Amino acid sequence: MTRENDLLSLLRSRFATDDPSVLVGVGPDDCALVRTDGRRIAVSTDAFAEGSHFLPDTPPGAVARKALAASLSDLAASGCRARWALVSLCLRRGLPDGWADAFAAELTAAAREFGVAIVGGDTISSERGVFVSVTVIGEPILDRMLTRDGGRPGDVLVVTGELGGSILGRHLRPRPRLREIAALMNFLASTGKEAFLPAAAMDISDGLALDLSRLCRESDVGAIVDAGAVPVSGDARRLARDDGRSPLAHALADGEDFELLLAVPPKGWKAFQAFLSQCERAGDMRDLAPFVAIGTLTKDRALLLRTESGDLVPLEPDGYQHQW
Amino acid sequence: MTRENDLLSLLRSRFATDDPSVLVGVGPDDCALVRTDGRRIAVSTDAFAEGSHFLPDTPPGAVARKALAASLSDLAASGCRARWALVSLCLRRGLPDGWADAFAAELTAAAREFGVAIVGGDTISSERGVFVSVTVIGEPILDRMLTRDGGRPGDVLVVTGELGGSILGRHLRPRPRLREIAALMNFLASTGKEAFLPAAAMDISDGLALDLSRLCRESDVGAIVDAGAVPVSGDARRLARDDGRSPLAHALADGEDFELLLAVPPKGWKAFQAFLSQCERAGDMRDLAPFVAIGTLTKDRALLLRTESGDLVPLEPDGYQHQW
Repeated sequence: MTRENDLLSLLRSRFATDDPSVLVGVGPDDCALVRTDGRRIAVSTDAFAEGSHFLPDTPPGAVARKALAASLSDLAASGCRARWALVSLCLRRGLPDGWADAFAAELTAAAREFGVAIVGGDTISSERGVFVSVTVIGEPILDRMLTRDGGRPGDVLVVTGELGGSILGRHLRPRPRLREIAALMNFLASTGKEAFLPAAAMDISDGLALDLSRLCRESDVGAIVDAGAVPVSGDARRLARDDGRSPLAHALADGEDFELLLAVPPKGWKAFQAFLSQCERAGDMRDLAPFVAIGTLTKDRALLLRTESGDLVPLEPDGYQHQW
Repeated sequence: MTRENDLLSLLRSRFATDDPSVLVGVGPDDCALVRTDGRRIAVSTDAFAEGSHFLPDTPPGAVARKALAASLSDLAASGCRARWALVSLCLRRGLPDGWADAFAAELTAAAREFGVAIVGGDTISSERGVFVSVTVIGEPILDRMLTRDGGRPGDVLVVTGELGGSILGRHLRPRPRLREIAALMNFLASTGKEAFLPAAAMDISDGLALDLSRLCRESDVGAIVDAGAVPVSGDARRLARDDGRSPLAHALADGEDFELLLAVPPKGWKAFQAFLSQCERAGDMRDLAPFVAIGTLTKDRALLLRTESGDLVPLEPDGYQHQW
């Protein structure tokens, strides 16, 4: 999960490194990639603070699950499998009895579910607030890590799952799309189509429009999104009934979907469709989240929405973080 | 840096794993050790909170340096070399302009000094307080990671550097003993004496007496510390002039020394002395922190202090964390 702003850009420039073991370092991508001898290791860290990412009354298990799942989403978005996680927990004095144990219990359950071992942690306390930091470690599923900067004009934009309205509950139990990205990459590898891996990838944590603008900036391209193709979640529709915004507006701008955003090269589209057919046929792939094509990358660097009537209108990158 | 208490024990039992890739997991040790194919990777995470580990007016560069150095001390204590670090930073709204940049600048300088590349991070903000979490990743210098549980009766207790009084300033600029442990381990390996590596090791973060009690508990032994042999720092003497406690009391109980505590097997003592001679002779080893023998591990599980007059008195494990 990356929250980008000027400060982050400033910090990034500080952390440039010429260490040859660092293949992908601090920068726009969700993970770093380092190597030691022949092994490549993907790492990512994410922080969560009471009052910003969860509330004082958010159940401790939900805090734990969300923190781990959101962190693992970065590995999925980078085309990596998850192996290990370390969790720092700062407890606030005055938390209810059992808070930390409930946190640990759900963290353990979520780790098992996502196939990752909790191998380290630190527990401290402060007067100030609850703070969680999760570091996840994994490995590229194939040789290459997926990054944000490989998109090219003509690539097909694909998302997983359904978008918008996560604040109605899904934001506390995100599903990192680890199995989905592994299924896609392993399918392409097993059919000799590694060349058609996604050209660019990221996870959608701050809303499709905002995150797409980031992928486009790194890839130096624009995009056209087909309004009619965007998978709008039931939660987005429910929210829209109450607040007067459209379900599509929620799907485009709401944060914390933790779905994947992929740029599939046009030459690989046939292989990608073969993968989708395989998903429908194979028993163990039927419960994967759906992959849906929602538009294309363009040479013109504008971000546009093709309305259902066929008009092209600007797509404002105005996603947001839940402020609770 | 490990702060042990009942909560931590509770959490540890939750995080037991049967994943065969986890060689050393969540437990008493400073680092975890995982493996992927032939590579072994050591990881550790540490958290630091405003109001607990630093003050609102602690300079941001000091916060950064301390957090990184204290985290790297865990790798040193485990007999590992440091490779990469990831840093989560939660900023408090209202911090002075330039706080984050000063933090990043000193983090970068300290990383260069300690030979580690900053490869990832997350920057968030909250109303609550400043939090820092650092994850360090390294590799065992030799095949084996040093742990707390290998101490045996008769092992010679050795510490690096000088102890006590860090609150006068050293606590903000700890020197992780990465070069010292590497020099020792490489010397033993180069002379064919790998069998005489320290049997147990940890870093002294919460005071010698308290941390020694932890090493003894994990190794199921006791210890006798020679009062006259403990390297008492000038800071401990300065503090003692003001507060009426003895310099030795400060050296035994003050926190945040971040020196190494090693248990050297008696069969390896000759090789260890050869290493010390080498340190005195070799130009590039002369600036290493000194290694000083301070006592022995015993079969009897008591912790004892041999006073300068030869009496054996109980050594209370009453180290503490600085409360500022």
